[in-house]
Amino acid sequence: MAARLIPGDGIGREVIPAGRRILEALPSSFKLNFSFVNLEAGFGTFQDTGVALPDKTVETLKKECDGALFGAVSSPTKNIPKGYSSPIVALRKRLDLYANVRPVKTVAGAHSPVDLVIVRENTEDLYVKQEETFMGPKGKTARAIKEITEYASLNIARMAGDIALRRQRVRDAGGDSIHKQPLVTITHKSNVLSQTDGLFRESARTALSEEKYQSINVEEQIVDSMFYKLYLKPSHYDVVVAPNLYGDLLSDAAAALVGSLGLVPSANVGKDFAIGEPCHGSAPDIEGKGIANPIATIRSVGLMLEFMGEEKAAAKIYSAVDANLEEGKLLSPDLGGNAKTDEVVEDIIKRL
Amino acid sequence: MAARLIPGDGIGREVIPAGRRILEALPSSFKLNFSFVNLEAGFGTFQDTGVALPDKTVETLKKECDGALFGAVSSPTKNIPKGYSSPIVALRKRLDLYANVRPVKTVAGAHSPVDLVIVRENTEDLYVKQEETFMGPKGKTARAIKEITEYASLNIARMAGDIALRRQRVRDAGGDSIHKQPLVTITHKSNVLSQTDGLFRESARTALSEEKYQSINVEEQIVDSMFYKLYLKPSHYDVVVAPNLYGDLLSDAAAALVGSLGLVPSANVGKDFAIGEPCHGSAPDIEGKGIANPIATIRSVGLMLEFMGEEKAAAKIYSAVDANLEEGKLLSPDLGGNAKTDEVVEDIIKRL
Ligand SMILES: CC(C)[C@H](C(=O)O)[C@@H](O)C(=O)O
Ligand SMILES: CC(C)[C@H](C(=O)O)[C@@H](O)C(=O)O
Repeated sequence: MAARLIPGDGIGREVIPAGRRILEALPSSFKLNFSFVNLEAGFGTFQDTGVALPDKTVETLKKECDGALFGAVSSPTKNIPKGYSSPIVALRKRLDLYANVRPVKTVAGAHSPVDLVIVRENTEDLYVKQEETFMGPKGKTARAIKEITEYASLNIARMAGDIALRRQRVRDAGGDSIHKQPLVTITHKSNVLSQTDGLFRESARTALSEEKYQSINVEEQIVDSMFYKLYLKPSHYDVVVAPNLYGDLLSDAAAALVGSLGLVPSANVGKDFAIGEPCHGSAPDIEGKGIANPIATIRSVGLMLEFMGEEKAAAKIYSAVDANLEEGKLLSPDLGGNAKTDEVVEDIIKRL
Repeated sequence: MAARLIPGDGIGREVIPAGRRILEALPSSFKLNFSFVNLEAGFGTFQDTGVALPDKTVETLKKECDGALFGAVSSPTKNIPKGYSSPIVALRKRLDLYANVRPVKTVAGAHSPVDLVIVRENTEDLYVKQEETFMGPKGKTARAIKEITEYASLNIARMAGDIALRRQRVRDAGGDSIHKQPLVTITHKSNVLSQTDGLFRESARTALSEEKYQSINVEEQIVDSMFYKLYLKPSHYDVVVAPNLYGDLLSDAAAALVGSLGLVPSANVGKDFAIGEPCHGSAPDIEGKGIANPIATIRSVGLMLEFMGEEKAAAKIYSAVDANLEEGKLLSPDLGGNAKTDEVVEDIIKRL
């Protein structure tokens, strides 16, 4: 099998090799024999070559590739060089990775248990990046387009429905969880954005009323209240489906509930292809110190495998990670420990 | 002095009278003699008259009015009747109430102390509500405009700067606080929205580099990380300035940190006029039960007075509320107590 690795910038270059080691260490009984190719993307690549996402990277991902892992990219906000634009946003669009799936889960026995997954639309909303600047009646004015299509909204809601059903299947098979029933929460701001968020809301309702999803409880939550309730009653939520930007913000808020972004994985999922990606950024403050938490990436490896249909291998990885966290002896500094990236990786490999 | 009361819908009709009682109960030494007029607005008004925000309400607010209080309006998200649109959003724009100021503060001795204020731009961003729906290449497509002007961004940043200075003045005069120095955090997503949020960021930087604000520490935080850090380290934040939508979401997130939206006030502030407004909504679930927490409104009365230049009367109200909360004997159900709205009001009046 062919996996592509795109370390990107900063600690991306430390955690992606960790993800690779996990894939290489999977028991041979899974018959997953990966070959690896490193691909370029990121701000470093931009500085070297003038392009943040080389065509070669996109082409290689399109061809003969079963799955991929993406590390992190630096996001300059000041003095953004002309022509630079976030390669991960571009990649999601160019490969039509229409869903960004972000599970957030505490380990067994947590004081305030959380077991939810944010299913974020990944190609449109304000991320279409159509902006213009002009002199208006009030002077300098900039505008951006927020675009919502019925097509993408139906698709992301079906993805949320499918994930809710899959999670229920795992629970019915004896998986431990705080939930008894599948629940999808549709989040939007249609009280203000009646057309765009209104279309998202209606399409999600339509998709989730399909026969296949009959067993799922469906509710709605206006996105401002969603932040409020997420914090005060996180255990209520199972699957949360959101337009791109709200999904971005909600996943960081949810990550705070488990104490560290270093624990939260994601998968960018398309029709027959998934790129695993830790939710954290390039973390320039700890870059090069060998102390980045590899768990977000290792769980992203699990997600990638899940979307490749390798659910058993994925489950193996998740439980090795959980065992490491539950024992709590080898934790990286973001979790209050003092283990190095490599020590955490080795501990998890031992448990595979 | 003339104050206008706009109860709106739901518990708005219970908390606005509470706010009025506080104004009437202020010691006569403050020489604040208010006359009151009730004005119509809300979903109920729309159902009765076909208009959610009658022109008469706007006109009366513009004329001979020193301050006003707005309760809450119901936001239908399903089957929104044609022609209905949120009256508070319209009011903010028609009166050019360009700043929405939302202080979030725990009482003395809180386990995880918070003392911050969100300064939200209140007239533009996606709230310009310019939307269209059409058939695009992918089928049904809706678009909304996000508009950011230099003008409004400079103004809101100056408001944030002025508030940071005022807070520092109160602290220097012996007010208790977890902060030692004034800090303004500019929040945006200019790594994706380089023109719109880029303009917000740049304008805020420009405004806050003015001579007057030299004593303020200024930092930036990308908005997704802002949700993360706000949860994990809320005591860090003093004044947070944000475009309209992020400000909406951040204020609900911040409200969760103090346990109830029922505690969080706001003021919609224009050039020489402020409307106090509790952050909570119309709360149909508890409407008519007489158990709504009046504190968000009572603190909004304080804010209104502050922006009218009546800082001493405002301080009196804040400390009466704090005394009620610190004693913790007469608390409404959202705070775990069983006091009625009226009992809380009376307890606070006793402390004025
Ligand atoms: C780096 C940034 C462009 C990106 C996003 O906004 O999608 C990140 O925040 C994420 O959540 O993956
Ligand atoms: C009711 C709604 C239109 C409003 C807003 O989005 O501004 C509310 O959430 C608020 O924060 O005042």
